[in-house]
Amino acid sequence: MTVKGKKRGRPSGAANQLSAQIIMDMSKSLMREQGKVPSIRKLARCLNVDAMAIYHYFSNKNALLEAITTSLIEEIYLPEEGNFNTRDNWKLELNKLCTSYLSLLSHYPGLLETFLSMSTISPAEVFAARFNIVIEPLHLDVESAKNGLDLLVDYLHGYALALSCNGKDCNSKDSQSTLNMEMLEGPLALYCVALENIMNTNG
Amino acid sequence: MTVKGKKRGRPSGAANQLSAQIIMDMSKSLMREQGKVPSIRKLARCLNVDAMAIYHYFSNKNALLEAITTSLIEEIYLPEEGNFNTRDNWKLELNKLCTSYLSLLSHYPGLLETFLSMSTISPAEVFAARFNIVIEPLHLDVESAKNGLDLLVDYLHGYALALSCNGKDCNSKDSQSTLNMEMLEGPLALYCVALENIMNTNG
Repeated sequence: MTVKGKKRGRPSGAANQLSAQIIMDMSKSLMREQGKVPSIRKLARCLNVDAMAIYHYFSNKNALLEAITTSLIEEIYLPEEGNFNTRDNWKLELNKLCTSYLSLLSHYPGLLETFLSMSTISPAEVFAARFNIVIEPLHLDVESAKNGLDLLVDYLHGYALALSCNGKDCNSKDSQSTLNMEMLEGPLALYCVALENIMNTNG
Repeated sequence: MTVKGKKRGRPSGAANQLSAQIIMDMSKSLMREQGKVPSIRKLARCLNVDAMAIYHYFSNKNALLEAITTSLIEEIYLPEEGNFNTRDNWKLELNKLCTSYLSLLSHYPGLLETFLSMSTISPAEVFAARFNIVIEPLHLDVESAKNGLDLLVDYLHGYALALSCNGKDCNSKDSQSTLNMEMLEGPLALYCVALENIMNTNG
């Protein structure tokens, strides 16, 4: 156990150095540690500033939540547009997108539930936009693409949930080490068969 | 608000009438109301018996949990074996199986997390056995069937999670009414395309 050095004397002037970025970084760090979005009060305490200073950057908790989740999901893999030389390249890109999304969800416990409970949909839009880049070479119609997105996203969320519940289990595995990307391969390959054949089925 | 009549005088002799079935029924009822598996103590209080009386039927909380979850999942749709006259019948059967599984999960908040955190796998085996009856006419190889099961189960869990998070949301919809089976149709039809084409892809 380490003992934190107690700060003495005048406040370190953190309030003067405060920025939206610093607030977001601290929020993410608390989310990783505690598995939920911190309260403004908790953030203020950790940043050694007054809560009002945070409201200067984010008008309310929802604005902060929106900024954090959007920033987090932008960390997932960004497929390169218009760079598909071989027929099967889109599958590799899809795999990278899914893997990085699952990594994000496993690093931030509670992030999935946060996404799903949010009234705005901007994180979902970020994922959808990247998914659409990946499947562009398949020339799916709008409905097939939407069904493909829904099937994939709910599959990934179910997978992430199983990982996080495993992690809470009484056996000794911790949730990080359980994130076995090989287990993703088979179902994802099957999913690709659906995308490859849906247009033939429709027409 | 209703006022519960307080029982007076001698205990009503509920202990004498106790059975595994009565314990399970009360457990399910508490799960529906409270979204989690009740403690033995809580169960005993609700049944007006001593906790030891419950241990007579279930040696520990895990044995009770196992019995409840297995009993619950046996309530889902049981496909009829060997009754597939038309080519597309398996899709209807699959739809019924998925719909009844999602209904179960939405009626028992917390059941999904309970399934996923359990160290035994008997509820998963019940679902797998019914899934195998449904896909029997497709004559999939073992690996394709396993991938199909994994993709479907995690998809359904992700869908159930989205429904339950919606229910907790601040908007006025309650989680029951949000369970829109029509939203299942598109992704499930896409999923069926995968199952129908996987064998062609392999060979």
